[in-house]
Amino acid sequence: MKPITALALTFVSLLLATPAMAQFQRPDDAVKYRKAALSVMGTHFSRVGAMATGRAPFDAKAVADNMAVVETLSKLPWDAFGPGTDKGDTRALPAVWTEQAKFKAASEKMQGEVVKLNAAAKTGNLDAIKTAFGATAASCKACHDDFRKD
Amino acid sequence: MKPITALALTFVSLLLATPAMAQFQRPDDAVKYRKAALSVMGTHFSRVGAMATGRAPFDAKAVADNMAVVETLSKLPWDAFGPGTDKGDTRALPAVWTEQAKFKAASEKMQGEVVKLNAAAKTGNLDAIKTAFGATAASCKACHDDFRKD
Repeated sequence: MKPITALALTFVSLLLATPAMAQFQRPDDAVKYRKAALSVMGTHFSRVGAMATGRAPFDAKAVADNMAVVETLSKLPWDAFGPGTDKGDTRALPAVWTEQAKFKAASEKMQGEVVKLNAAAKTGNLDAIKTAFGATAASCKACHDDFRKD
Repeated sequence: MKPITALALTFVSLLLATPAMAQFQRPDDAVKYRKAALSVMGTHFSRVGAMATGRAPFDAKAVADNMAVVETLSKLPWDAFGPGTDKGDTRALPAVWTEQAKFKAASEKMQGEVVKLNAAAKTGNLDAIKTAFGATAASCKACHDDFRKD
């Protein structure tokens, strides 16, 4: 075995032994993961929002770069709302699990709006970005209103 | 103003008023952001690791999907290690700021290995994935050894 492989195996063993790095071995891992993904997504979406609403100078490349990150992240949190992840350090409301079809629809609505906003971002057209940003922000808000504690 | 735009503006105002959603208005925001990005990256990298080391069945599409996420996330944390972000809820060692060139080189080494692993992932060749995974894991470990508290 080459030294680098031995090192890597040791490192991965450590990773796998660390609960937060495992594939949702515990419900808390899923909660931590989805919060982290939504938090990073929110940071990049708010940067787009600052430009779309005139609070920061419009920079077409920055909008496109941030939206590419948002689109990747928008797909991630949903698998982490599995059974048993309604407890712990989470603001998710019971409706996530009692109204699963509605929650799924809301998450898919957001992802669809993000795709449209990302497409607008690639054109660099500020008016198109503003319109798509408004629809995306509304989809975030709708889901937070129904499925997240204030 | 259309109702959807008014809603969006209200929502964005709330986002911007929430420190964690602002663009690193406070050092703690940067710390939270980089930890979240590294945590999500670690989750997806460990899923690749489980397959590369035979702890989980090899699924070429899953490797590729996870590596696409890892590559996007691998670029994100570094801007969040700015001045004043050495305090608070962080395991980052002072060396991050006292040896900035070395830290930058370590972060770029990792990003380069991730690009290679992502390329291997796209080929679906398990041997190539194992080799590139070993090199990537070693680059993670090297940076953690030098720049992160145990």
